[in-house]
Amino acid sequence: MTKIKATNITWHEGHVSRSARETLLDQTGVTIWFTGLSACGKSTTAFTVEHVLVEQGRLAYVLDGDNVRHGLNKNLGFSAEDRDENIRRIGEVAKLFADAGLITMTSFISPYRKDRDRARRLHADAGLPFVEVFMDTPIEVCEERDPKGLYKKARAGEVKQFTGVDDPYEAPLHPELVIDASKVSPQEAALTVIKYLEDHGHLPKLQV
Amino acid sequence: MTKIKATNITWHEGHVSRSARETLLDQTGVTIWFTGLSACGKSTTAFTVEHVLVEQGRLAYVLDGDNVRHGLNKNLGFSAEDRDENIRRIGEVAKLFADAGLITMTSFISPYRKDRDRARRLHADAGLPFVEVFMDTPIEVCEERDPKGLYKKARAGEVKQFTGVDDPYEAPLHPELVIDASKVSPQEAALTVIKYLEDHGHLPKLQV
Repeated sequence: MTKIKATNITWHEGHVSRSARETLLDQTGVTIWFTGLSACGKSTTAFTVEHVLVEQGRLAYVLDGDNVRHGLNKNLGFSAEDRDENIRRIGEVAKLFADAGLITMTSFISPYRKDRDRARRLHADAGLPFVEVFMDTPIEVCEERDPKGLYKKARAGEVKQFTGVDDPYEAPLHPELVIDASKVSPQEAALTVIKYLEDHGHLPKLQV
Repeated sequence: MTKIKATNITWHEGHVSRSARETLLDQTGVTIWFTGLSACGKSTTAFTVEHVLVEQGRLAYVLDGDNVRHGLNKNLGFSAEDRDENIRRIGEVAKLFADAGLITMTSFISPYRKDRDRARRLHADAGLPFVEVFMDTPIEVCEERDPKGLYKKARAGEVKQFTGVDDPYEAPLHPELVIDASKVSPQEAALTVIKYLEDHGHLPKLQV
């Protein structure tokens, strides 16, 4: 730790620069936006990336239903307007986290192209990298997994407007990465994401 | 950097623990909630703390009007309902940042006790420390500073429901810190906050 003199502390009008925090963390702020059907492997991949990075001394954080839907977005329902606002807020919060220097992952179905594109634009306007990861796992595989029994309920009509059943999923047109979780292991999926971060200068090379 | 084998990467069902990130950062996640009248010194103090901490290798981030009002909360106006929602969202986002291990500061007038207390409860429920800093600068001093000419406009009736003029400011009953910016320099104010963090185990001792 550098010794500083109290008399050398100056006050500042504005925020610490993003680059100062990035230098401190030895990584660049980035948002990795996972999108895909329910049970396609978004969260499993995101959490695996998070664990690997934190074990390697990198600061990563996952925004998902657990910490967002029950907190920031708990006053939103499932109307078209509320779904739109849900993804808008997630994009804004991810941008704040990336601005703070974190490797930020979002794990939400986020089925509509316009919502994801808005999050991408927000980041572009702030000079922040945005990595869209399309988890392109076939719906048959997702439906067979169905850990929460949601597909079953949707097919039975007990859950309405369920993505892939009676609500559309609009696949990304130009995602940075496409991963089919029925063809690769969670570890391979995570390493694909980490390799992308390294290859694009967001991380020093991981020693695997 | 520790060498890991790709074959050693396991997948994980859930989030990395808060304590893992705190160990990595050598600090604890905390929210420092600055409250007080317009021009009372909230942002100057917060930014000074932020700069000192980042220079010392600590990860700190300030949420303020610049990065929140124009982003996450840009769809909110100044009705009673919207002001309430404004502070609610800030509390939720601060909680996410503190959960990620950051020394998080919020710089908003946040004039109502019930709104601040809700943010405090949110943190308490998540086991996260919350430090309310009441910038108790006399309104006469704030009004003389008036960097944006807002008090002048409020006195002229051009700005309505301005805190301290025609809208109440409810002083905290049990703030962790009280700072009068008319009596101490921004540097002294910042060191008061930093000393609090050290004394409560959120930071290793700062060498000043």
